Amino acid sequence: MPHNSADVERILREKIRAIPDYPKRGIIFRDITPLLKDKNATKICIDEMAKRLSRYKIDYVVGIEARGFIFGSLLAYKLGAGFVPARKKGKLPYSKISRDYALEYGNETLEMHDDAVERQSNVVVVDDLLATGGTASAAGALVESLGGRVVAYAFVVELKDLGGRSKLTGKDIVSIVTY
Amino acid sequence: MPHNSADVERILREKIRAIPDYPKRGIIFRDITPLLKDKNATKICIDEMAKRLSRYKIDYVVGIEARGFIFGSLLAYKLGAGFVPARKKGKLPYSKISRDYALEYGNETLEMHDDAVERQSNVVVVDDLLATGGTASAAGALVESLGGRVVAYAFVVELKDLGGRSKLTGKDIVSIVTY
Repeated sequence: MPHNSADVERILREKIRAIPDYPKRGIIFRDITPLLKDKNATKICIDEMAKRLSRYKIDYVVGIEARGFIFGSLLAYKLGAGFVPARKKGKLPYSKISRDYALEYGNETLEMHDDAVERQSNVVVVDDLLATGGTASAAGALVESLGGRVVAYAFVVELKDLGGRSKLTGKDIVSIVTY
Repeated sequence: MPHNSADVERILREKIRAIPDYPKRGIIFRDITPLLKDKNATKICIDEMAKRLSRYKIDYVVGIEARGFIFGSLLAYKLGAGFVPARKKGKLPYSKISRDYALEYGNETLEMHDDAVERQSNVVVVDDLLATGGTASAAGALVESLGGRVVAYAFVVELKDLGGRSKLTGKDIVSIVTY
């Protein structure tokens, strides 16, 4: 097993595939499917996330649809926390709250059941990728509107140039591989 | 911890919420979010799936978008297998294969990267729900078109009256809670 965060980043970086010009010209897409396919890499990634969050007593991990479901549920399992899905509009069947946020073109909506987290509970919001931060910020706002405490955000990949951190100020931000 | 499969089913059934008339009149939707919110219930569910698959040496677990990502990635972690996402059309960035299947109204398409599994590897296909079996069957066909061996399908909930098992003949089928 790797000894420190730099080792972890080096190992996992090799498992993230660069797809040039996807979804459009000039963008390099970071494809995490090779990482997921490798059971050891996935375990190293989740262990590292858990280690960097070990100072908190986490009650719930919120995973953002769809790839955030993968890392969020694994992190919840590892931390011994409950898992809560934050879903795209119209996917959740029970009484819910919703939050709009801006994407490059137009708006998106994220939803959460209104019994998803308890007041005063400690929550981590997880997604595979931190880009502009709009999606994660919307998920955090949903948690807080239910009275939960967002203690941290965790991502596998962070695209630093897009400045997503600035939308998540005042919270701990864990990202494993940065570009 | 529960001692047998009947105990497991009884415990988990209490964590599955019935939503009447969703998504339309006359349908009872089985909502697994209370199960996911409960760390113990989730662990019991995954442990039971893993136990019922323990006779196999599983190389990869395929999780079907989106809720299959949750249980699929947890099962892969538990079994020490790699995780492979089967996604809706247009979501995967790399070279891929696709399969159409019929839903109640019209068709859907499921896709998988063409390097998702190796030839002769042993694969379990996971989703939260077995209904008509169309989605799971399409995921299995994708695996087999890449030369992988689908040794089993695993579901949290099975709706028996919809007869989905008949689309998955010749394979082991694990379902934890049946209605």
